[in-house]
Amino acid sequence: MVKKFILIPDSFKGTISSGEVCSIMEKCIRRYYPEAGIISIPVADGGEGSVDSFLTAMGGEKIRVPCKGPYMEDINSFYGIIDGGKTAVIEMAACAGLPLVGEKLHPGKTTTYGVGELLVDASRRGCNKIIVGLGGSATNDFGAGAAAGAGVRFFDKDGRAFVPVGETLSQIAKIDKSKLCEELRQTEIITMCDIDNPLFGENGAAYVFGPQKGADPKMAEYLDGQLRAVSEKVRNEFGVDVSSLKGAGAAGGMGAGMAAFFGSSLQMGIEVVLDTVGFDQLALDANLIFTGEGKIDYQSLHGKVITGVARRAKKMGIPVIAVAGQIDDNIEGIYDEGVSAIYSIMRSALPFDEVKHRCKADLDIAMDNIIRTISL
Amino acid sequence: MVKKFILIPDSFKGTISSGEVCSIMEKCIRRYYPEAGIISIPVADGGEGSVDSFLTAMGGEKIRVPCKGPYMEDINSFYGIIDGGKTAVIEMAACAGLPLVGEKLHPGKTTTYGVGELLVDASRRGCNKIIVGLGGSATNDFGAGAAAGAGVRFFDKDGRAFVPVGETLSQIAKIDKSKLCEELRQTEIITMCDIDNPLFGENGAAYVFGPQKGADPKMAEYLDGQLRAVSEKVRNEFGVDVSSLKGAGAAGGMGAGMAAFFGSSLQMGIEVVLDTVGFDQLALDANLIFTGEGKIDYQSLHGKVITGVARRAKKMGIPVIAVAGQIDDNIEGIYDEGVSAIYSIMRSALPFDEVKHRCKADLDIAMDNIIRTISL
Repeated sequence: MVKKFILIPDSFKGTISSGEVCSIMEKCIRRYYPEAGIISIPVADGGEGSVDSFLTAMGGEKIRVPCKGPYMEDINSFYGIIDGGKTAVIEMAACAGLPLVGEKLHPGKTTTYGVGELLVDASRRGCNKIIVGLGGSATNDFGAGAAAGAGVRFFDKDGRAFVPVGETLSQIAKIDKSKLCEELRQTEIITMCDIDNPLFGENGAAYVFGPQKGADPKMAEYLDGQLRAVSEKVRNEFGVDVSSLKGAGAAGGMGAGMAAFFGSSLQMGIEVVLDTVGFDQLALDANLIFTGEGKIDYQSLHGKVITGVARRAKKMGIPVIAVAGQIDDNIEGIYDEGVSAIYSIMRSALPFDEVKHRCKADLDIAMDNIIRTISL
Repeated sequence: MVKKFILIPDSFKGTISSGEVCSIMEKCIRRYYPEAGIISIPVADGGEGSVDSFLTAMGGEKIRVPCKGPYMEDINSFYGIIDGGKTAVIEMAACAGLPLVGEKLHPGKTTTYGVGELLVDASRRGCNKIIVGLGGSATNDFGAGAAAGAGVRFFDKDGRAFVPVGETLSQIAKIDKSKLCEELRQTEIITMCDIDNPLFGENGAAYVFGPQKGADPKMAEYLDGQLRAVSEKVRNEFGVDVSSLKGAGAAGGMGAGMAAFFGSSLQMGIEVVLDTVGFDQLALDANLIFTGEGKIDYQSLHGKVITGVARRAKKMGIPVIAVAGQIDDNIEGIYDEGVSAIYSIMRSALPFDEVKHRCKADLDIAMDNIIRTISL
């Protein structure tokens, strides 16, 4: 019997990209079901690689665009066009990501300006929907740079226009949205983010993610104060309260900025992917769905890729097998969500440093044996 | 559909006995197939627990017998009666095993005398077949003690009768088999051993297993010489050459003694188990066979439990799934032997010391997910 499989894994964080997970899974299935129908949907979490993930899953075009980098330098960036040109996918890391700054880390001075330029470019190209992936940012500018890049003007107390960065957010005295790109106003903007950190406070952008962007404790405290100040400012100016918005702290507060400046809704990455690829339609006649992630843990039960996929599959009565790097304790709830079975790729009692170099081979072995079992 | 499963695992050395592996596997199967036919055959490797394994697999009776211990002290020992009383199973560790000597380790002074007494008792009880499991011995006496316990007489150069121990084997000048228990002569004796070490030399009993029995390097060298001497003696007396017999080095040279004194054949444990339980008949209408061991490695491809089971199952066209603690590299050959799929119970990148305490729970998780997959 010809079978139909859907592969929709998250990445195995730090070891295998979701695209590679799909490739390995497909190779294993083809060994035993050479004629099978296989649909690969590598899941993007919004960070680096998100555009490629959508293009792999749906086909489309990569658009190359010159824009400003994290230090306002000229760079060549890109975004993706899917859905016959109607939808664009932007990963903010493509013009404001950590790899672009190298060792020159400074979350107080970097900008998301280029993201605004990409938004304008995509909307002027005729896209009526833009998906913006947050993740992997080098910035802490609340997305004010992106707003400026799209036409929003910021003024200090002396009426001078400036582009706010992380350390100057509190200097914003007035915000003028009137010059925001006209096409962009007509565009639906969906923001993907996989974390639910608030904008500021001990779980906020500056304290939690500042350090990996180069902030020492003192700087993190200062940047946190800047985020509080701008939060207050947008509440006064637009009547938008982002102080308790879940995910507002993503990408250096850009989660908040996307909501405040662009009226964008923040959504879990997996839900955006499922909706965008038309999962329910694709899965209709599938026999089996494979998903996976680096570690199945308690968090996996709360809106991450595996449960996102499983909940929909359950409604359709399609079994789901999840393959993970590691499996934590107390995850039995995952079966209730619609996961049929879970497997770890581990096969040795060794610490992570000694097995990570072979994790692709171990995924192949685990997947191979699962398919062997299914084909019995 | 009512299914029939056969569970025939080895122990997970040092962590889970084969009987416990069967119990966990059965519990998992019953969750999804409450009506299934399940036959548990915990595999004995000849060492401690072998009698219980046979009794679990086949039913039978445990016979309690007083006999001599490793230091000729009086102890209460046991053997098993299966097959309606026609077959006895003796584990030599029951009267000459390491747990019996505690810290009083001395492979030069300990004896297998009690094993001979058990052999005599079983044959006089009417058993026409006796299976002797070698393994876990505290002795290095070539099985000369067991021979003495069964009636064989040993004399030194002055014609004095004595019971040789590991350090006095070279003093044997003459061996008289004429008083060997009459009933035992009529009995088929099969010796189970899971190693193929020769009697003496660098891979022999004294050098390889002597240290764990308390021999320092000098004693090991001396004991090795004693085994060489007795090997020469039995060749001269009986014309039996045990110097190159595979498995002769098992249980302190008792492998050789079983061949030389009792004309017993040495067989791999798994083959004895498969023949004794009537595996081919039991498996005839089975849907699936589960086997397993602590670690699937290159050795697993050479006459160990998994391949022993798989080779027979392959002839019958019955799929075999192997569940292991760990899975080593380069074991792809196992599929050609008839194993359908292999799984490790590992689920964390942690060293053995940190996971061994939970290995029973991890076996349950792995097995549970395999059955979940099969039941899809």
